[in-house]
Order: sequence, then C-alpha cells, then structure tokens
Amino acid sequence: MSKEITSRAEDYSQWYNDLILKGGLADYSAVRGCMVIKPYGFSLWEKMQAALDKMFKDTGHVNAYFPLFIPKSFFGKEAAHVEGFAKECAVVTHYRLKNDEDGSIIVDPDAKLEEELIVRPTSETIIWNTYKDWVRSYRDLPLLINQWCNVVRWEMRTRLFLRTAEFLWQEGHTAHASAEEAIEETKKMLGVYATFAEEYMAMPVIRGVKTESERFAGAVDTYCIEALMQDGKALQAGTSHFLGQNFAKAFDVKFLNKENKLDYVWATSWGVSTRLVGGMVMAHSDDNGLVIPPKIAPLQVVIIPVYKGDEKKEEINTKAREMAEEIKSLGMSVKFDDSDNTRPGWKFAEYELKGVPVRLALGARDIEKDQVEVTRRDTGEKKTIGAGGIAQYVDRLLIDIQQNMFNKANAYQQEHITPANSWDEFEKLLDEKGGFILAHWDGTPETESLIKEKTKATIRCIPLDNPQADGKCILTGKPSRQRVLFARAY
Amino acid sequence: MSKEITSRAEDYSQWYNDLILKGGLADYSAVRGCMVIKPYGFSLWEKMQAALDKMFKDTGHVNAYFPLFIPKSFFGKEAAHVEGFAKECAVVTHYRLKNDEDGSIIVDPDAKLEEELIVRPTSETIIWNTYKDWVRSYRDLPLLINQWCNVVRWEMRTRLFLRTAEFLWQEGHTAHASAEEAIEETKKMLGVYATFAEEYMAMPVIRGVKTESERFAGAVDTYCIEALMQDGKALQAGTSHFLGQNFAKAFDVKFLNKENKLDYVWATSWGVSTRLVGGMVMAHSDDNGLVIPPKIAPLQVVIIPVYKGDEKKEEINTKAREMAEEIKSLGMSVKFDDSDNTRPGWKFAEYELKGVPVRLALGARDIEKDQVEVTRRDTGEKKTIGAGGIAQYVDRLLIDIQQNMFNKANAYQQEHITPANSWDEFEKLLDEKGGFILAHWDGTPETESLIKEKTKATIRCIPLDNPQADGKCILTGKPSRQRVLFARAY
Repeated sequence: MSKEITSRAEDYSQWYNDLILKGGLADYSAVRGCMVIKPYGFSLWEKMQAALDKMFKDTGHVNAYFPLFIPKSFFGKEAAHVEGFAKECAVVTHYRLKNDEDGSIIVDPDAKLEEELIVRPTSETIIWNTYKDWVRSYRDLPLLINQWCNVVRWEMRTRLFLRTAEFLWQEGHTAHASAEEAIEETKKMLGVYATFAEEYMAMPVIRGVKTESERFAGAVDTYCIEALMQDGKALQAGTSHFLGQNFAKAFDVKFLNKENKLDYVWATSWGVSTRLVGGMVMAHSDDNGLVIPPKIAPLQVVIIPVYKGDEKKEEINTKAREMAEEIKSLGMSVKFDDSDNTRPGWKFAEYELKGVPVRLALGARDIEKDQVEVTRRDTGEKKTIGAGGIAQYVDRLLIDIQQNMFNKANAYQQEHITPANSWDEFEKLLDEKGGFILAHWDGTPETESLIKEKTKATIRCIPLDNPQADGKCILTGKPSRQRVLFARAY
Repeated sequence: MSKEITSRAEDYSQWYNDLILKGGLADYSAVRGCMVIKPYGFSLWEKMQAALDKMFKDTGHVNAYFPLFIPKSFFGKEAAHVEGFAKECAVVTHYRLKNDEDGSIIVDPDAKLEEELIVRPTSETIIWNTYKDWVRSYRDLPLLINQWCNVVRWEMRTRLFLRTAEFLWQEGHTAHASAEEAIEETKKMLGVYATFAEEYMAMPVIRGVKTESERFAGAVDTYCIEALMQDGKALQAGTSHFLGQNFAKAFDVKFLNKENKLDYVWATSWGVSTRLVGGMVMAHSDDNGLVIPPKIAPLQVVIIPVYKGDEKKEEINTKAREMAEEIKSLGMSVKFDDSDNTRPGWKFAEYELKGVPVRLALGARDIEKDQVEVTRRDTGEKKTIGAGGIAQYVDRLLIDIQQNMFNKANAYQQEHITPANSWDEFEKLLDEKGGFILAHWDGTPETESLIKEKTKATIRCIPLDNPQADGKCILTGKPSRQRVLFARAY
C-alpha cells in the first residue's frame, strides 16, 4: 500500500491527520489556521448540506445571504456577545494596496476605513440590525431564515475540520412573537440536528442543554448535541440557541403584537459546520482509512476489475459496465475504475482508505461463474454473490451498512457513559476509560471551572429529560439535584 | 396597488432599484457597498446555482473550497494581476478586539498580523499556490475544480446585484498539460455560460473575446458573454480566461510531461456571479414588476381564490388545492395563496411584481363552469381554461413563456446591433438608440481609450467568428480589418 496510515493505538492524533490528508479530504493552506477543502472532502460536505438544507426547508425555513463584514460598533451592542467573540476577530482596517517606492506592494495608509469591519465570526448582530427594518407587526413574524456561508474565528490552536480559523457552516436566525414559540423553534432545530447526525452520519448524539459558562455568548439557553469520538473524547456537533430578547433589545427590534402593543421580538439561532466532517471521520474510521456512512458517501460503490493478462478482459469490462448501469439505475453512486496505471491491490487499498462503503471485484473466474466478490467497508467482510440481482443486493447492503455503523457507534457510546461517585473514580475514569461521565455537580460556575482546571474535563451538557436525583458534588461535596455529563472534548 | 413602481420611461435606474427592493430580491445593508440578498432573491440564485452546478459537473468538474484570505505577498507574484486588483482590496491587519480604558471596543494594537491578509477578490493566487503541491506529472492533470464562494472588491460606486463590494460567485480554476487543452476548456466553459444564459435565463448573449485593455488581470485571453439590457446598455454576464502559464510561472507549478520533461502547467479560470440576477431583472422585467423565466423562477404558478363573501368558499378552496396538487405532481412549483388579510386585487399585483410566470384565479363562477382564469406574466394575456387538464396546460404554457421571453429579448437584441460608419453616426447611435454598435477600430489601446473618454462606450468584445472586412477606424480613420462591438455598459 502506497499511503501508510498511522494506527489509532500508535498515535490517535496523527491517525486523524493521516486520514484527512491522505484520504483526500483537506489540505493545509498557506494561510495560518485556514484549510483547503479538497474535492473529495467537499463532496462529503455537499452531501451533508443537501440533506440538512432539505430538512430546513421541510421545517419552513428559507435561505438568504447577509454581509461578510460587520461594523465594529455593532459588536459592542450586545455585551455578552462582544465579550465572547472579541478575542478572535479578524479585522479589516484598509481597502486598498499600492506600490511602495521600492516597487513592493504595501497597504495604502491613505485607504484607512473610518470604522473597522469585523469578518463575521457569527451573524447575529448584522442580521438583527437588518431584521429591524423587516419587522413591524406580528404579521411579519415568524422570520425563519438560514444562511450557508463562511465565518472566521481567529483560533490559536487549529485542527483540520475540527477547529479552523475559517470554516463553512449554516446559521439559522429566526424571529418570533413569543418566548414559547422561540423556545419551540430552538428545540425543533436541535431535533433536526440530532436526526441528521444519527440517520445520515450514523453518529449517535446526546441532546442536552449547556451550563451557563458554556453557553453561546448572548444566549439565554444553548442546546447542543454531543457525540463521542473513538478516543473517548466528546465533540460538540451542533448548537441551537434561545436568545430571548437580547438581540432585539440590542438592535431595537420591536413589533406590534396582536393586542396592538409594542414588544421586543424573540430570537433563536442555530448552526452546524464543516466540523461535522471531522466528527464523522473520528466516529467511524479505522486503521485502514475512512469509513463513510452510505447516506453521505460521495461514492457508494466501486467496481474494480481484476485482470490476468488479457484473459477475458473484454468480458470483464462489459460485465462491470453493465453492473455499474444497473446499480446507478437504482439511484446509487458507482464508479467502474478501469484505470490501468495501478494494480488491483493498490486500488483496493485506495478505496478502503477513501471509505467507499462497498467494493465489487470482478475477475476472469467470476465471469465464468457469473459471480462477483462483494466487500463491505465497515466490517471488511467479503462474500461471493451471483451476478444476477447484484444491484438489489448492494442496495440492501448499503442500508445494512448504514444501520450497522450506527449500531456500532451507539454501542460504543453506551459503553462509555459511566457514572462516577467519587473524585478519585472521576479522575480515574477520565484517564483510563474516557467517554462521558455522569457525575453530581453543585451547580456553580466556580466548581465547573475548578474541575476543568484539574482535569481538562468540561460539562458537555445537562441531558434533556435528565433524571432528578439528590446527591453530592463530585468535587465539593455540596448538594446536587442531578448528575450532569462530563467529558474531555475537542 | 400598495407598492408603486417607477416606470422605465420615467427613471430607468429608479425602476431597477424599485424592482429589486420592492420585489423582495435584496436590501441595502449597514456595510458600505454590501447588500443583503433576501429570501426571494436568494431562491432565484439557488435555482441558477443548481442549473450551473449540474452543467459544471456534467462537463467533468468537481467543487472544492479554498481560503477566504490571501497573503499579501502572493498578490505581488503575478505583476498584471496585482496591478488589476490592488486598488480594490479589503485588507485584514489585526486579529483581535479589546476593551479600551473607557470601556469602548477597539482594535487591539498588540494583535497586528505580521503579514496582512487580503480578502479574496478572486482566487487565482491562493489556488495556484496550492496546485503547486498537487501536480507532479501529466497523470495529475487536468485538474478541473470549481468553487462557490463570496469575494470582495472594494468598488466605489455600487449598485444592487450589478456591482457590490461583496458578491457571491463561482470561480472555476483548471490546470492542463497543454495550451490547446486549456484553450479548449476556456471556450467550453464560455459555451456553458452562453447556454445557461440563453436556455435558463432566456437572455440572448453575444460570445466574444475581450481586447487587451478589457482583459482579466493576468490572462492571455479573456472570453466573455455580453447581454443587452432594456435601456440599451450592455452587461458583461460571464467571463472565461485562458491564463497561459502566467500563474504557473508565478507560483512555480511544473509537471513532468509525457516526454518526461519539466514544463509549466497551463491554466484557465472562469466565473459568473450574483450579477446575473441583476441582468435577469433588467433583461425581462416591465413597469408592473419582475418577469422571471419559468426555468429559474422560485415560484412558477400561483393560485389565487376570488371569494364573494362565503359563496362557494369551500368549493373554491377544495378545487384550488386539487389543482395545486396536480400541478405539483408534474414537477412545477406552485402556491395556493388563501391568506385572508389581503384582497385578490392586491395579491394579483403582488405576484405580478414578483414575476411569477403563471397566475390562476378561481372564483364562484369558475367553479360553476368548471373553469379557471389563467394569466401569463410575460404578455399579461388572460384566458379562461377548462379545469380538467389544467396542469398539462400550465406545463406547456411555462415552456411557451420561457421561449417567448427568449424570443422577445432576442428580437430586441437583434434590433440593437447597428453598424456605424462615421464618428457622427457612432455618437448619434449611442445617444439616441443605444445597444451594440458594430464599428471599425484601428486595434490600438490608445484609440479604444480615447473613444471611451469621449463617449463612455467600450469595446464589449470581438465576437467569435467575426467576419473579416477591411475598413477604417471610426475615430482615427486608420486601417482596420474587422468591426468590433461597442456599447455603453454596466
């Protein structure tokens, strides 16, 4: 095999980078913290986008586009918001370059902006400044708007897909006439994210609400879905925020309600990003490469011919093309790779690395026996199947693979939700087993922060419908009414 | 009618702005030169994107994503390129905000970037810097990559959709092993743009090549499609560039060719943008509002009930919903607008303003007679049609509207390509008739520039397959071998 992958056991972090780089998902760029999403990785993101976009539209949302730049003054209008984002903002200060006397290119000092512009790290401020002009009365509500775009957060430690200075995402921004309706929307979109993660990405998630210190800057409540990676670390995979009237007050967005009284508008925002690609990689892949769930795989089936010299070459090609047509006609994506500059073994390894869910291999003996060798990527299992009805077989197999990947990830997650009843146990679990730890906490940000300092574990969420049970805080021993979900996280 | 539209005759420019703003396509934003694309306008762009993206993929291209930011030093590497774009670059100089002593938000002077970053005005430089790592031999070629993204060009005079500081577009960047192949690609993509403009946007275009002074900064040749607006001004609707080896040389991108020799890679780039939305508006719309070609219309058919009190209200609603289902089942987009807060007349005007291609009106008498009133937006023609088979009727009608819109725009364009044989005639045509003017030109940038200075007309292109015929330059009287296409342009 030409592309060596570090194993998970050897170096998990290097394993991840190997998969991203050698699997052709992304590349480093010349710009600090920014990545290049390569065609294979982008195709994966396009599949995710298409599924999510349909779910958004099916729940009544429409897309729009707001400016990339936000005037600096907008940021200051919501105190918590600016506090949360000020330290990671890319700032545009000038609008022209010029030739220096020595011929080099410099920023033209005469082209300084009167007010600096922030490259959006998220768009609440510019959007609520716009909504001000769009909302007069309850008849104009709700506004159910989403945008797909790039955002920039100047992260100091970056990681391909998981944490980059620029990333692609969608951000929903909705406006409502009542708190109840906005909260319902917040929860509904959390549900959409959870469904997408589980049904498309085969990635089980825990739905919950963030503690105050993990809340989105400017939110009243932040709901989240949390997934578990194979190294036992958690990944926040999506968030949905109930913003109360915070942004409406900051941007003076009022409406006439049905009682003909002026009130501030209620808001939500929610987003998922290209980080999901990284989550998918870490949730499913193995030491041979990527393992991609069929529903979002850029390529679902590959057919590889195995020639022995020229023996039956024509027949193999003809049969393979027939099969590809059949498979395609059932709506699957399929490629017949008859490129002749590499050997079958190299191709096997390459498509394994790329995580293509199903591989068909077709040789001279298969033609004689009217059969084909089918290998599923998730388990590596090989079977020889009659060539008749192969398309139907593969169609069912893809469904099976999708389900099996979810089951496997789900079993792993279930095995890695562990209660801890003492501080020693808590630390030991974090160091030796990883995963989610259910522990009592006294409810104060101070204790939360202290636990983080001592262990790097954070409260991922308070699960929805969390059982209430009295206990004592794992660190302080103070009374607690429920266990919350701790983990080390990406 | 609640939303008054300025007529074209009265003030063409105000008419255009009225359509964009009151038709719900876009809005001004708080950021100088940037616009908000509203849901209806964005939906139009999504339709355009979907059609174009399919055409790109059908011609073998894949999508990817490259960073928003470009290191300043990259710009200087291709001399013509930096010359062309330096004056309109948004420059990021800092990466953090902080609280000033008085509590206000300021740019943190300690967070200055070592090298400034340019917000991409186009991505040749960052992409060719990446291609350097992706290309080793002819086997790695061609690279056929496209990206959908936002770009920023600091324009001084902006116009909704037609010229904004930030805009959305796609940029194809391909790499080839020979000049011939790259030129073929350049022309192929021009063909894709022309087909899209004519078949989807119903907007006839002239295919041509730019003169040296109108060429893309860094290109060897720029091909373009030019459309004609209703005020007789031209609009450059798409460009496709043969870049030769300019960017490969600037970024040192070499490959081993089949003869095992190192050579620089050949390049193309090509793009269309949200400017197309503005072009569509100006090409087709009338004094009552937008007129949108069915193939890219966000909504193709609207059904409006006309109640007289409660008479047959139930039957009307039932019938309308039936019709909507039938129409939808044939693949058309349709909306039954039974909102009760506005009167039918208001709705008629609103959907007319929005350019919905077909309107069906259904009243008590129509129910009695089992008929429906059909109004087509392009001609305003009304017909009463039997309710049976209405879906098939509307399906055919949409095809007819699409064709009719093209024919009308095409006839207008044909009538507005006029030869000029003297300077007086040239000036008179520009002032009184407008449109494209075919005139001899001596081939020098100096004369081209002088003509522009005197008349504001530019050479839009030298049409492909331009007939060769000797003549004398319209301004200088010097010898010329062909007429070129002049116009005033957006």
